[in-house]
Amino acid sequence: MSSRRIDLPLSEMPDKWYNIAPDLPRPLDPPLHPGTRQPIGPEDMAPIFPMGLLAQEMSSESWIEIPDEVRYAYQLYRPTPVYRAFELEKALDTPAHIYYKHEYVSPAGSHKPNTAIPQAYFNKLEGVKKISTETGAGQWGSALSMACRMFGLECEVFMVGVSYDQKPYRRVLMETWGATCHRSPSNLTNIGRRFLAEDPNHPGSLGIAITEALEVAVADESTKYSLGSVLNHVMLHQTVIGLEAMKQMELAGEYPDVVIGCFGGGSNFAGISFPFIRENLKSGKKTRIIAVEPKAAPTLTRGPYRYDFGDTGQMTPLLRMFTLGHGFVPAPIHAGGLRYHGSAPLASACLDQGLIEAVSYHQTACYDSAVLFARTESWVVAPETSHAVHAAVEEARKARETGEPKVILFNLSGHGILDLAGYEKYLSGQLEDYELPQEEIDKSLAAVPEV
Amino acid sequence: MSSRRIDLPLSEMPDKWYNIAPDLPRPLDPPLHPGTRQPIGPEDMAPIFPMGLLAQEMSSESWIEIPDEVRYAYQLYRPTPVYRAFELEKALDTPAHIYYKHEYVSPAGSHKPNTAIPQAYFNKLEGVKKISTETGAGQWGSALSMACRMFGLECEVFMVGVSYDQKPYRRVLMETWGATCHRSPSNLTNIGRRFLAEDPNHPGSLGIAITEALEVAVADESTKYSLGSVLNHVMLHQTVIGLEAMKQMELAGEYPDVVIGCFGGGSNFAGISFPFIRENLKSGKKTRIIAVEPKAAPTLTRGPYRYDFGDTGQMTPLLRMFTLGHGFVPAPIHAGGLRYHGSAPLASACLDQGLIEAVSYHQTACYDSAVLFARTESWVVAPETSHAVHAAVEEARKARETGEPKVILFNLSGHGILDLAGYEKYLSGQLEDYELPQEEIDKSLAAVPEV
Repeated sequence: MSSRRIDLPLSEMPDKWYNIAPDLPRPLDPPLHPGTRQPIGPEDMAPIFPMGLLAQEMSSESWIEIPDEVRYAYQLYRPTPVYRAFELEKALDTPAHIYYKHEYVSPAGSHKPNTAIPQAYFNKLEGVKKISTETGAGQWGSALSMACRMFGLECEVFMVGVSYDQKPYRRVLMETWGATCHRSPSNLTNIGRRFLAEDPNHPGSLGIAITEALEVAVADESTKYSLGSVLNHVMLHQTVIGLEAMKQMELAGEYPDVVIGCFGGGSNFAGISFPFIRENLKSGKKTRIIAVEPKAAPTLTRGPYRYDFGDTGQMTPLLRMFTLGHGFVPAPIHAGGLRYHGSAPLASACLDQGLIEAVSYHQTACYDSAVLFARTESWVVAPETSHAVHAAVEEARKARETGEPKVILFNLSGHGILDLAGYEKYLSGQLEDYELPQEEIDKSLAAVPEV
Repeated sequence: MSSRRIDLPLSEMPDKWYNIAPDLPRPLDPPLHPGTRQPIGPEDMAPIFPMGLLAQEMSSESWIEIPDEVRYAYQLYRPTPVYRAFELEKALDTPAHIYYKHEYVSPAGSHKPNTAIPQAYFNKLEGVKKISTETGAGQWGSALSMACRMFGLECEVFMVGVSYDQKPYRRVLMETWGATCHRSPSNLTNIGRRFLAEDPNHPGSLGIAITEALEVAVADESTKYSLGSVLNHVMLHQTVIGLEAMKQMELAGEYPDVVIGCFGGGSNFAGISFPFIRENLKSGKKTRIIAVEPKAAPTLTRGPYRYDFGDTGQMTPLLRMFTLGHGFVPAPIHAGGLRYHGSAPLASACLDQGLIEAVSYHQTACYDSAVLFARTESWVVAPETSHAVHAAVEEARKARETGEPKVILFNLSGHGILDLAGYEKYLSGQLEDYELPQEEIDKSLAAVPEV
């Protein structure tokens, strides 16, 4: 009988994270101060992040030790399994071998705890009492709520208003773990009050929610801020995914020709791919690395590579990244986690330096593949993850045409059990795609400062 | 670093199910024909179930081989992990060691696929094209939808009307796997039309839904019926849980003094406990085996042990079991899967013969423990499972009082990610308990036939 699942023993859980920064052919451009536009150092960000995380953010070490306390927490769901998608392969009649890494299994239902846990830990270590953050669809807010509880920290989440109204159960999940979740914009911050004055039912945006969370952190010395994607230390933490997957592919006796991750801010993509990019750079492997984004938020495929703010309120440092402009408001597609205007500087550098490829798909095509996946491999994936599934399906179809027995590995970043509204729309034929006119991107980019 | 998780390698997945029937000190009383009240044989049930399952239902073999096709499907999530609940123990300051078996990890989110998969398989083997079933809260309907898809069978689910209206996402999940889900009562059956004529918005009941599914199966030769609990072959399939757990406890170097499962129809309870009852019977072990039910449906703790129907419509055979009467309508507690009037004949015999204990708790007490569990062990459990968690917590508290370092194992039968409404009510202080007056039980039992 064929083995569908490749488990890694607990003893094989990585004890170091992989930092790609020092291995990049050209070094990363530094973050700039939002006011002075000069490169910033750890001290500039110390009011917001603990030094332990800032040291990782700026580190030039290739390997950074995972503390025992973090590995103990990871044991709840790590190492996660890798699966061979035999049933999907059969349905596609493809000679390709398709593997997926199963981050779905964490208590929060996605890869997000991989960074939420160490972020909570390093905050705790420095005496922080509370962490504030924003959340869009709710995956990140859930993961941080859970992680804060593990280390006895308070957690305050600003949830984008429209999601807060539409997804009450994400809020309940955060509250079950003991967090406080506010509808954003809220009357607890200056920026929140400003937007509420304009419209008492303001739908909110990720940009506003970030600024609210930052305001809360800056106002109170024992409170820090946490971000679930984009930053270097977040990418770092997520590399446990790819490091485990590499060992599991070895157990399977194969090496991937293609590695795929969906792309919003970049964290799950970095997690699965950075260790394989390292092999390309160090060992002469030629694995294709594909980032998959929605056509409704095509940061990597249609945005320029330039300095921009991480938030609408222009409070964050300027980061060099592929961006659609910090004022960009994507269409309300179901993959809420992929609706971000920017992209992780590390992933952006990889694209700029030709280490990765990027593709974009419409959401209905992604749901086609997600439903095919559910009906072959049984797992119901998150709308974000459906983009990775679809890219894997497309690669497998190409392999059928060419007869090439290629090995595909994708990251199953999260489950869709709290996002079944999208499946309902798809199954009832009501799901729509959004064409994004170039003028809309141009208009948004016009507001990005020249640096 | 302590190991929180005890994994079992894929190669250690059980290759046989355990049948407790031949090991019972007193043999099981036979099912009786609903009309003649005479013992029935496989041929009487052949229009409804395939012979492969009926052979298991009546088997006197202790061990029944698990087909390779079923083990291949089980690989998606089996062997499931066992966890040591270190964080819960700390919070309770107990000398007890608490372990839990993690059935949450299946694609359907509960232990139900353990029997859905072999049921679909044995139907497929005999040329069946479609399976009909009922579902209450939706766990069973989801699991069977998924399993039918695996073997290319159609699946038609009658979902209790009030749940269908309140839980649209359970329906979407079934549809994602390709099943058809009807609101019950429906206009597709005689009994459905009868109840709809009384009330076009009839809220439905499990009893009505069972009768509808049976009608559909009886009317079409290529359609069979499937039940997710109560029957002997269902208990049999679930024993993979306990068989794996026994090996995992051995790996942990401990043996449970107490084994706990929540109790509705009895299937997850049987799954975790029957292999340990076997050890009590064969090897002189003295493990206490505890079935935990809600005070709102106290079948084992307040019902008599007598023959009764499995459905309101009196279409099923009469089964000897603890029962509250086939017309009993439990209060609308959140643990929908525990709202059944009867109980598995095998589990009932175990209670009658003194092999197990039964306790009942109110739902708010169970949510107290479920929230404590979420805030220590991170997993958000199903409302049904919260009963097992609470019993484990109570046992651990007793151990603290007595100073006894007892080993507790409970079955984490499913996740609560699609049942967060109950947590919301609990967290906002709106959850209510239901006292069940004796007259209500007496009245319901008065309609049970004397046999």
